[in-house]
Amino acid sequence: MVIALDTGDMERLGKRAAIFNDAGITVNIDHHPTNTQFGQVNLVNTDSAAVGEMIYRLIEMMGINIDKDMATCLYVAIATDTGGFRYSNTTPVTHRITADLINNGVDVSYISQTVFETVSLPKVKLMGKAIENLELFENGKLAIIKITDDLLKSVGAKEEDCDGIVNIGRNIEGVEVAVVIRQRAGGELKINFRSKNYVDVSVIANRHSGGGHKRAAGCTIKCGINEAKEMLIKEIREVL
Amino acid sequence: MVIALDTGDMERLGKRAAIFNDAGITVNIDHHPTNTQFGQVNLVNTDSAAVGEMIYRLIEMMGINIDKDMATCLYVAIATDTGGFRYSNTTPVTHRITADLINNGVDVSYISQTVFETVSLPKVKLMGKAIENLELFENGKLAIIKITDDLLKSVGAKEEDCDGIVNIGRNIEGVEVAVVIRQRAGGELKINFRSKNYVDVSVIANRHSGGGHKRAAGCTIKCGINEAKEMLIKEIREVL
Repeated sequence: MVIALDTGDMERLGKRAAIFNDAGITVNIDHHPTNTQFGQVNLVNTDSAAVGEMIYRLIEMMGINIDKDMATCLYVAIATDTGGFRYSNTTPVTHRITADLINNGVDVSYISQTVFETVSLPKVKLMGKAIENLELFENGKLAIIKITDDLLKSVGAKEEDCDGIVNIGRNIEGVEVAVVIRQRAGGELKINFRSKNYVDVSVIANRHSGGGHKRAAGCTIKCGINEAKEMLIKEIREVL
Repeated sequence: MVIALDTGDMERLGKRAAIFNDAGITVNIDHHPTNTQFGQVNLVNTDSAAVGEMIYRLIEMMGINIDKDMATCLYVAIATDTGGFRYSNTTPVTHRITADLINNGVDVSYISQTVFETVSLPKVKLMGKAIENLELFENGKLAIIKITDDLLKSVGAKEEDCDGIVNIGRNIEGVEVAVVIRQRAGGELKINFRSKNYVDVSVIANRHSGGGHKRAAGCTIKCGINEAKEMLIKEIREVL
């Protein structure tokens, strides 16, 4: 038996799809609304903030005692999928389950520090450079950060260190749309969009064959970095 | 009747002490272990993560329905005093009360964004400069950030924008002690200490007539900024 957790479709299994398909029984436990029901047994609950909530329920139903390690793993699953109990998917059930997990021995402070607050030195330096390069437009409603390949190298940061950099712009008081333009080695530009309250950034991303959600979207553009910046300012100005 | 909330002693009431003392009945509701029981009626529960938890209990006991505004205020009180459910004071009770508050209409995502994620532009710029000025010592176990008065002015930041800057250093992977040396207009240096796992920074702060907790302390030193830096490196080296 193989169980796939938190996996919307077969594609997300990547190389592990072969292992999944070779199993006698395939089980798919997930909470994404887009789940394709790809298992022989499918347990999909879109009301759950995290698959960790679903696993908690299963363990409870099986009458198994939750020890400290299990509680810690489930706590991390729930805390990360709710952005530390901050996203709109956080429900009363999320908090009730978390209460019980802490009762079973989670070291809240240590786990929170490790999961949410520890940052590598290159990432911190990248954040500093991103702030240095941050520009505001449209009366401070639009924030743009450019990250060139050279800049990334200069601080010893990796591709994945760019994750979340767009939030630096979005979190600034008065900013509605934040954009990160990331130059990649091949000359391609990877664009990240975030919005705060009313702009649907997926519409902008869609124009450039990208996609995403209303408040978080992305796309890839092939042109000069400053050319892309000017184009995006123009496009976003219309919806601000 | 006057009620003091979240106030350890009369001093913290500041100018409001006169109003408190003039009242017919004085009530003191708090959760600090150091509370001096300064009211006629004292309700001090040191097991509560936040006074918001205590007020929730009182409202519940009075049989009053909690509406959306009340739920939102109590949620903010609890979320801020637990660092967004991350500090060690966060208990199962904290999460159970929070579950009920969300049930009563708290807009989790909006409130979290407003309370925890909105940062002013000067503060963001100050963070960038702080990262630029950050130095590591002792094989990356000690992080020091110097903030001069000129630097503060150059980004248009205020004194209070320095709050939390020390966490930039503390959160770096491998750092055990983080220090912010802040030059103030008068030539005085205000020092902030944070530690992660084992160094008792209150001992260092005490040497300079400061104080605080094991993991967060502070003091004031009168000397040159670089002189202070060298002295602190030496003192911290011994306990790393």
